[in-house]
Amino acid sequence: MNPLAKTSQYFSEQWGWLRGYNGSRFSTDLNAAIIVTILVVPQSLAYALLAGLPPQIGIYASIFPLFAYAAFGSSRFLQVGPTAVISLMTAVAISTVPAESRLVAAAILAITMGVMLTILGLLRSGFIMNFVSRSVVSAYITGAAILIIVSQLKHLFGVETEGRTVIKMITSLISALGTTNPVALLVGGVTLIYLLLVKNTLPLVLVKSGMRARRAKLISRMAPIVAVILAIVSASYFSLSSKSGLNVVGDIPRGIPPFKLPMDLELYKLMLVPALVIGLVAFVDGMSTAQTLAAKARNRIDADKEMLGLGVSNFAAGISGGYPVNGSMSRSVVNFSAGGQTQMVGIFTAILMLLTALYLTPLLYHLPLASLAALIIVACISLLQFKELWKVWVYSREDGLTALATFFAVLMLGVQWGVVAGVVLSMAFHIRATLRPNMAIVGRFPGTQHYRNVDRFNVETNEIVKTLRIDESLYFANARYLEDKIARLAQESPEMTDLILMCPAVNRIDASALSSLETINKRLDSAGVRLHFSELHSMVKERFHRSQFLDVLTGEVFLSQQEAMEALEPEPDWSEFSDHIDIH
Amino acid sequence: MNPLAKTSQYFSEQWGWLRGYNGSRFSTDLNAAIIVTILVVPQSLAYALLAGLPPQIGIYASIFPLFAYAAFGSSRFLQVGPTAVISLMTAVAISTVPAESRLVAAAILAITMGVMLTILGLLRSGFIMNFVSRSVVSAYITGAAILIIVSQLKHLFGVETEGRTVIKMITSLISALGTTNPVALLVGGVTLIYLLLVKNTLPLVLVKSGMRARRAKLISRMAPIVAVILAIVSASYFSLSSKSGLNVVGDIPRGIPPFKLPMDLELYKLMLVPALVIGLVAFVDGMSTAQTLAAKARNRIDADKEMLGLGVSNFAAGISGGYPVNGSMSRSVVNFSAGGQTQMVGIFTAILMLLTALYLTPLLYHLPLASLAALIIVACISLLQFKELWKVWVYSREDGLTALATFFAVLMLGVQWGVVAGVVLSMAFHIRATLRPNMAIVGRFPGTQHYRNVDRFNVETNEIVKTLRIDESLYFANARYLEDKIARLAQESPEMTDLILMCPAVNRIDASALSSLETINKRLDSAGVRLHFSELHSMVKERFHRSQFLDVLTGEVFLSQQEAMEALEPEPDWSEFSDHIDIH
Repeated sequence: MNPLAKTSQYFSEQWGWLRGYNGSRFSTDLNAAIIVTILVVPQSLAYALLAGLPPQIGIYASIFPLFAYAAFGSSRFLQVGPTAVISLMTAVAISTVPAESRLVAAAILAITMGVMLTILGLLRSGFIMNFVSRSVVSAYITGAAILIIVSQLKHLFGVETEGRTVIKMITSLISALGTTNPVALLVGGVTLIYLLLVKNTLPLVLVKSGMRARRAKLISRMAPIVAVILAIVSASYFSLSSKSGLNVVGDIPRGIPPFKLPMDLELYKLMLVPALVIGLVAFVDGMSTAQTLAAKARNRIDADKEMLGLGVSNFAAGISGGYPVNGSMSRSVVNFSAGGQTQMVGIFTAILMLLTALYLTPLLYHLPLASLAALIIVACISLLQFKELWKVWVYSREDGLTALATFFAVLMLGVQWGVVAGVVLSMAFHIRATLRPNMAIVGRFPGTQHYRNVDRFNVETNEIVKTLRIDESLYFANARYLEDKIARLAQESPEMTDLILMCPAVNRIDASALSSLETINKRLDSAGVRLHFSELHSMVKERFHRSQFLDVLTGEVFLSQQEAMEALEPEPDWSEFSDHIDIH
Repeated sequence: MNPLAKTSQYFSEQWGWLRGYNGSRFSTDLNAAIIVTILVVPQSLAYALLAGLPPQIGIYASIFPLFAYAAFGSSRFLQVGPTAVISLMTAVAISTVPAESRLVAAAILAITMGVMLTILGLLRSGFIMNFVSRSVVSAYITGAAILIIVSQLKHLFGVETEGRTVIKMITSLISALGTTNPVALLVGGVTLIYLLLVKNTLPLVLVKSGMRARRAKLISRMAPIVAVILAIVSASYFSLSSKSGLNVVGDIPRGIPPFKLPMDLELYKLMLVPALVIGLVAFVDGMSTAQTLAAKARNRIDADKEMLGLGVSNFAAGISGGYPVNGSMSRSVVNFSAGGQTQMVGIFTAILMLLTALYLTPLLYHLPLASLAALIIVACISLLQFKELWKVWVYSREDGLTALATFFAVLMLGVQWGVVAGVVLSMAFHIRATLRPNMAIVGRFPGTQHYRNVDRFNVETNEIVKTLRIDESLYFANARYLEDKIARLAQESPEMTDLILMCPAVNRIDASALSSLETINKRLDSAGVRLHFSELHSMVKERFHRSQFLDVLTGEVFLSQQEAMEALEPEPDWSEFSDHIDIH
């Protein structure tokens, strides 16, 4: 296919939904966009503050990334923008630079993440998603949620705290409790209780009064806006900010910043590693959300395209004065429940956020930080996955330990270390399980060409030519075990002259295993035993040809086990029958 | 077995060699010990300096660890003590503490390493050795050797440099070349050329003049002592130290320090992570040496015992004023070639080193650092494994890339990062290879109970009951692929009512894969398809019972594939034969 045709095919796949677009879809999409926007406004302010940035940065990050994702992303429902976890990781990453450079650093972080994810997406690296097991995702999300909840407590109490790990934040909070601002605690506490009540009882009440379950759920999801409005009104009416020292959002400049590509090379260098880690976490996190929604709607998500979409969105966030973005679980679910049908919801939301930035920011002046904190805390409570983690623990000790390590690494060392610990541990446990692969001496099933385990079947064997069947790929982790196994076999079989390794299930032999095979070949040779192979996969055989192994191999490589036995098996001793044979 | 019998068995295994000990063994062992000692003295001084410690620390680390290893180690030939790689890593680890605390920090590092390895050894964790592939070991040793060679150049030129990575050391060296000490360069250069000549030509010359090859090799290995003596004599005779500013070893206090367990808790905390990393590197490195020698002598090494031996040795080093030790490749090989037969060589060497510390240190005053540097450089040149690395590269791109990353991480980031990069990459590449496991739709071989791949054999199948055979364990990395595969199969098989997953090669199903199976079960259910299993391993079946999966599973778990087909396969439609049947 020529590049032009390829491009056109891409666009028709990507924007095919535009063709059937009509008035009815327009109205459901616009409706969903309005509902999503009502949720985005307080969330974007709160998450920007969580990242240690001015609140308006959250709004900027909720405009152009949405356009970018609508154009390049693969999910019809995913809503990108500021999210709690990515904001928390951004806070950690930019805390290494002086306060006055943090705005630029956050933008550069988003740009670097964007470029990396775009390149990885174009290189079809979406498969790296598969390295993160579900138990790690559950543990990571649960740990991060707790970390965020703890980080918000200071706003509830209206105090200053420091530290980035749970223990430091809690000890710092306890020692600052003496300076609690009672008004902040009142406002935050009331918001928190209201939100929890609404979340747990409102849907039930509505359903009992005859509303359909889906609608009831959606309405209860919109409850935060009531809290936000009430909080703004009371704070403004009683001048809580100036009179009682209640922390509020404050002045937000109207308008949006011009597009700009920051050029601070030193900062790019500093943000390189955080960008990679945050980028991968964001991708895994966003993919989980997108896949969950795709499964509900019975369609599929393309990991490579999703990576590209997230990359372009972050680039857009970075050059438009925003900070790293990701697919938001809460807003995507609201979009889905509100009946959003196409990527147009994102575009409408972006336009509404643009209008907010241009005209509505003065209305947000009196929004108390304590209320925003309550909002974040309630959102995080719904992310806790203790039940899933308990299930994992009961099912498998290895998965349970991996999840536990991830969870504590998130809380004690920081979210990125949680992912690193989880991925490395789950890989290590998997490899540990293959340290001793299944192997069996096999013999011929009488009268057939089938070869079976001598311990389990009554098969024909002999002491001269033995066959060892290997049931797993050979690689560094089990190469030494194979050496030991064959050394023992050679010791126990003094009459053996030929050993056949039967490899129907050996999909791969890596360089370490090849080196072990060379050692085995040499040792068997000095014991007077030839080494053969049968039923090698063609890829493995091709690899052998590329090395010099076949030059030193004392035996042969046979296509099938039957062929090997026919060539090597000692002739039955016919001498006693010779007279008999002569006669005929 | 009761603990007493167990202990007595352990000691009889460990010290069984003492029983047959006799005069002839005594004399060969003592002979080997003298030769080893001649090598240890300059090496221990040089390596202590490489670690950034006073030279005598190297001597202290060559006494009690040898006793400890003789008592607990598993190799008859391994010589523990200061080594180049571990000294380099120690230098990096203790560079984080103020200069006046480094001695204590080094001892604490050895103690922490010792305790960790001892515990890991008692817990039988020797298997972790298998996580480090041979390509990683080759790349790591080659990189570390280059790093050490570069670190010694400053002594050859008699200048001061800084930095711990190759690039920094070289740039620092180049800018310091103007202050080169010509005498240092002369002494170092002559030693270097002498050592290289001896190493490459002396054995040939000796063999030509009628000596046996093994003896010739051993003599050429002893050549360094001549260089050391000549260097000491000339430096002393011409007073090169005071007159020409040649750096020499200088004053070494006579005697040995008393046993002491340092109690600086802060330092223990700081050395915790380095101790773990260095401990694992030392173990892998030492095991490689021990295994190579064991293979030559046709006996085996017990990884767990080896770990314990290394642990106790390091603990002994730490409390006796030394620093981290490891099995030394060069000295172990010399011991082996000199005919050392038992662990007694280590004990004799320790006694000789004790005598050196008590009486001979004044003789070492004038030993030039430039000569020691030349000694280290020549030792490191023989560690370079470029040929092996090239072989790896040709054989497999994945192994090659892993080795390359290890190599550059060692040079650019530090030795420990090399090991980390190598281990993580080799695990990741292995897991990447299993992302898409082999799966096949199978059917019955006519007239048999064998089930084979429909694409490769002419087998009986039907559209109602399908069987998918899975050829690899199911775990997080391939769980999503299975979901996709079955979703596609369900789409393509509208008539299917039952799907059997045939799992003869599925050794493990982890929590992520279980969660995928639950998803698959639910999706198939909503499509009206029941999910069954056949030929499950008993361990997997037991795991299923531990979870609630069997409660929600729509189908059944069958022992064999044949049983599953007999239970599920639709009866052939006999109606057209009914008359026929009635007649008979």
